[in-house]
Amino acid sequence: MSERLRIGIAGLGTVGRGVVRLFGEHGELLARRCGRPIAITAVSARERSRDRGIDVSGYVWHEDAAALAVADDVDVVVELIGGEDGIARAVVERAIGAGKHVVTANKALLAHHGTKLATAAEDAGVALAFEAAVAGGIPIVKAMREGLSANRFRRVYGILNGTCNYILTHMQESGRDFEAVLAEAQALGYAEADPAFDVDGIDAAHKLAILTSLAYGMPLNFDAIYIEGIRGVEASDIIFAEELGYRIKLLAIARLTDNGIEQRVHPCMVPADTPIAGVNGVFNAVVAEGDFVDRTVYEGRGAGEGPTASAVVADILDIARGNRVPTFSVPARELQPIPVAPMDRHMGPYYVRLTVLDQPGVIADISAIFRDHEISIESLLQRGRAPAEAVPVVMTMHDTVEAAMVNALRRIAELPAVLASPKMIRIEML
Amino acid sequence: MSERLRIGIAGLGTVGRGVVRLFGEHGELLARRCGRPIAITAVSARERSRDRGIDVSGYVWHEDAAALAVADDVDVVVELIGGEDGIARAVVERAIGAGKHVVTANKALLAHHGTKLATAAEDAGVALAFEAAVAGGIPIVKAMREGLSANRFRRVYGILNGTCNYILTHMQESGRDFEAVLAEAQALGYAEADPAFDVDGIDAAHKLAILTSLAYGMPLNFDAIYIEGIRGVEASDIIFAEELGYRIKLLAIARLTDNGIEQRVHPCMVPADTPIAGVNGVFNAVVAEGDFVDRTVYEGRGAGEGPTASAVVADILDIARGNRVPTFSVPARELQPIPVAPMDRHMGPYYVRLTVLDQPGVIADISAIFRDHEISIESLLQRGRAPAEAVPVVMTMHDTVEAAMVNALRRIAELPAVLASPKMIRIEML
Repeated sequence: MSERLRIGIAGLGTVGRGVVRLFGEHGELLARRCGRPIAITAVSARERSRDRGIDVSGYVWHEDAAALAVADDVDVVVELIGGEDGIARAVVERAIGAGKHVVTANKALLAHHGTKLATAAEDAGVALAFEAAVAGGIPIVKAMREGLSANRFRRVYGILNGTCNYILTHMQESGRDFEAVLAEAQALGYAEADPAFDVDGIDAAHKLAILTSLAYGMPLNFDAIYIEGIRGVEASDIIFAEELGYRIKLLAIARLTDNGIEQRVHPCMVPADTPIAGVNGVFNAVVAEGDFVDRTVYEGRGAGEGPTASAVVADILDIARGNRVPTFSVPARELQPIPVAPMDRHMGPYYVRLTVLDQPGVIADISAIFRDHEISIESLLQRGRAPAEAVPVVMTMHDTVEAAMVNALRRIAELPAVLASPKMIRIEML
Repeated sequence: MSERLRIGIAGLGTVGRGVVRLFGEHGELLARRCGRPIAITAVSARERSRDRGIDVSGYVWHEDAAALAVADDVDVVVELIGGEDGIARAVVERAIGAGKHVVTANKALLAHHGTKLATAAEDAGVALAFEAAVAGGIPIVKAMREGLSANRFRRVYGILNGTCNYILTHMQESGRDFEAVLAEAQALGYAEADPAFDVDGIDAAHKLAILTSLAYGMPLNFDAIYIEGIRGVEASDIIFAEELGYRIKLLAIARLTDNGIEQRVHPCMVPADTPIAGVNGVFNAVVAEGDFVDRTVYEGRGAGEGPTASAVVADILDIARGNRVPTFSVPARELQPIPVAPMDRHMGPYYVRLTVLDQPGVIADISAIFRDHEISIESLLQRGRAPAEAVPVVMTMHDTVEAAMVNALRRIAELPAVLASPKMIRIEML
């Protein structure tokens, strides 16, 4: 048996508590699986006196997380503070600087500073591990970086935010609107009081930046991600999606196209008979399409104490076993930028919902505009008749360039018989 | 850059061809991902002259796979010959004996000799890697052994045989019987001329033995697996399953119970709204339930040139990166046997289909027998009426001990009004 591996935990929120509990319950099993003793030795959090339901009296207590990061009796620093800058960043940087391995669940930090941190860690010969940062308990980082490492990736996409998926699932099941379901999710603790980070797609984009880098060997490029949240999804869109054989999901998608790398987070209509369409509630899922392996799907809990702790401790075991892999699949200094595919050149099918005055000639006018933009209509449904009143017209389009779609809808919006802003949702063929 | 890793491939069937092709297409990418040059240097197969659609002229050709296994210019021996004994076993044993790493896709070999081979490999300080042996391209071995290594497993189960899943899916879609769909699968190349190995559940059981060992740290125990194939599944069972809200799948299940370890392969009714129920055609899937991570699902192609090559090469990259994990999650010499839970003490819900004479009192007689065995009926449906003729009666039972079920059905079979052997399918609650 080799030397004991000493773990220091910075942050005792939900995840930190889970890690402490996991070590308490499975300490012996973990040692058996990694072939050496392994133990938490130090912790740090804001209020020492707070009752967290765990016993941390056996650990060295650090008032200051930055001190834990460089403490002599810690080999692996587990950063569970969160936030893209501030203390979390300082802890990670100082730990690497002190030659300590780092395990973190902090997607914001990685999305913004991942390339730099990975370079520093690799230069220092320490691990920077982050299984918990993407899709919680699902071991997708390991799958991308090791299990599927023989492949070039055609596309990687997923449901990466449980709050959004919970809301969309419940909108679908209840027929209610976004605001009502959001309020319910907040009451149940599935959404934050300020839900912007989740429902506006930022959190999913942080995770996507990481996945993209893992898949394509490029430096993290969060700023290039096209982001659109779920606030604009209406109950009627969900009903029409169902009629058309789709489900609406907030997808995060990375794809290498002829125009460069596409990274986008937005509501998508996905065919109802695909695995991702069946991923409901707070569950997350990732689909990785490799050129040799074809489609592989990973599903599980994307958040919560147990699943996230499971991912954090898996990283710790890798370190204890002495296993090391380049942080983002290839060495950080060899990550190569890929040109960004502009969103207006995105090509794909579309769903459009218009609110029009039910009068002769409207459809002809709309169709003519689409024709002028070389957009080919796949289907059109007009539900109900109410002469001279507002009715919805729903259409799906064959593969179209985004710019043409945007321009056509702008012109359509100007038609006197079109009563509300046209609504557009991208369809993703899976 | 460290030294070049030299790969020898024994067996140039579908998978061997895929591995050669993969190295041809992604050689540079693989080197970048593992940080060192890596190349196939030697191959072996039965007929040198055969056209395989790949160029192997640049490799040392070995007439004898056993010679390749100990060749000086090979660091990693990839065994793709297959079969639980014979040449495949000799190649693996000799390679380990010569201090070479081994990568194999051979589930039969591992199911029967896995513990011994793992012990030999670990004693010799070489890797015995087998990602391709379970669920083809899905990186489930890595997930079990590394990604989820912080968990105790509650249950692990999966669809591990694509041929059976293809047949069951098409029986469901077409309403036809097993024999007809099997013949079609054979014509399409999805089933062998002699399908016994697949449809009788042996292949799935080989893979289950491996998964069980990975999950529970016990020596492989193939002989203890309860195995029942899909030949007995009838079109009517599939229709009734659908009516009851289930799908029929051939599941391989490992579960730790109070009676010991259950390992079983048999047709199961699974709730239609679970992820595994939606896995269709030749796809495989594994569900791993850990105590911290909860339910995680993995889906992908379980066979074929590309997916299997993807798994084989992932193992090679692990070896090239110098990463090593105990073969079956804990060191082979520390694998601990777990008592086998006898199948007759299995506890779960059941589906029963009887063919009875439509006459007064039959249901009362049947119900009395179930009552006498303390079996509680959950639902009963009798379709159609045909006085004094044969009609099906379908029942589902609440949790019951298998022995009681078997005894009750034996007594029911003796009733004069019961016209055919009672049919029983276990229900698995997921």
